[in-house]
Amino acid sequence: MPEFIIDDLTQIRRKPQRGSYERDVIYGIIDEALYCHVGFNQDGQPVVIPTIHARVDDTLILHGARASRMLKHLAAGHPVCVAITLLDGLVFARSVFNHSMNYRSVVVFGRGRLVEAPDEKWRAVAALTEHIARGRWEDARQPTPKEMDATTVISLAIERASAKIRSGPPGDDEPDYDLPIWAGVLPTGLQLGEPVADPRLSTGISLPDYLQHYSRFSAQT
Amino acid sequence: MPEFIIDDLTQIRRKPQRGSYERDVIYGIIDEALYCHVGFNQDGQPVVIPTIHARVDDTLILHGARASRMLKHLAAGHPVCVAITLLDGLVFARSVFNHSMNYRSVVVFGRGRLVEAPDEKWRAVAALTEHIARGRWEDARQPTPKEMDATTVISLAIERASAKIRSGPPGDDEPDYDLPIWAGVLPTGLQLGEPVADPRLSTGISLPDYLQHYSRFSAQT
Repeated sequence: MPEFIIDDLTQIRRKPQRGSYERDVIYGIIDEALYCHVGFNQDGQPVVIPTIHARVDDTLILHGARASRMLKHLAAGHPVCVAITLLDGLVFARSVFNHSMNYRSVVVFGRGRLVEAPDEKWRAVAALTEHIARGRWEDARQPTPKEMDATTVISLAIERASAKIRSGPPGDDEPDYDLPIWAGVLPTGLQLGEPVADPRLSTGISLPDYLQHYSRFSAQT
Repeated sequence: MPEFIIDDLTQIRRKPQRGSYERDVIYGIIDEALYCHVGFNQDGQPVVIPTIHARVDDTLILHGARASRMLKHLAAGHPVCVAITLLDGLVFARSVFNHSMNYRSVVVFGRGRLVEAPDEKWRAVAALTEHIARGRWEDARQPTPKEMDATTVISLAIERASAKIRSGPPGDDEPDYDLPIWAGVLPTGLQLGEPVADPRLSTGISLPDYLQHYSRFSAQT
């Protein structure tokens, strides 16, 4: 896949060696993340809202209630920034100054478009459901026309994007390596607990396969 | 502690029963989160960047390299939005439409101020270090004057803020409860792995207590 173009907005200036403009790297991070943060500019005031997303080819799908202020703003085609961050570890250097985090993050720039065509909207809602748990769309009760009507779907063309990635041990200044201070990484990630059945779940309904073996790393991708 | 004032920016319009303006609720979420997303408006273009934060009383501390574009923008006092999100679970309803997430999120609005007074800046850097791991500041090699000089610190007064919280089982439409579809919650959280020592760690240095018993919920707060 072709790389994204590097421009003034997406160029990684701080620690450029951590930057990536490769589409498969960027899309891998987008697909693994369960949610994103959407930034937009409302009458000069920056606003950032967390929401779920899905990727369909070179677009991000966002959705919500028809009345959502954010979605109305996005539907109007204003510029938007979507940030996605996966935290992989806390990096303890010997010096406070060289403390860091291991992470994989993506910043996407684009403009939204209201999805109105029924087929495209249906596929977008399916993609959002499948993004959370592959297999759920065919298993759950699919939306009624009234529910689809109450839902706004936005398609955001991923026009520009960059990733920033740090991994590995701390990097201390050479003289600090002799200090008697513990240094290393505390790995972090997404913890998945045991599924908790709805108290109102009818008897005889077992946990579906796609939730028994849920993973963001293999089953989902 | 007094509640935050509800205004046009912070009022939770969608699902208002999930909103909170209580300072201790909001500060609890801020303190538990390891990082935040900072949104600002750069020449009409919204930009969202992940970064670590710490809270000192009614302010958020942000920091980075002196050359950081984001910090220069914040130092100039432009309006900024900081979003903090803790994902607690994936909520599987019987209907696609009622799928949701359990989460605790905070949105903060304010304006930044460059921290220049050496004492205040020193305390801010200590707070950032302690936010990640309480005990680390006294244990690690503290910053030199040159390192402090290379670091920009921003203090962001938490002028307006709101929290949005969802918890508990899915909420399906009454007729859907009879459907033979599994429903419930897949709990999610922050996974902490076993600490990985720096390959260059000198022999005889053991893992400090505050990393042996690391937790975002008890040891840190």
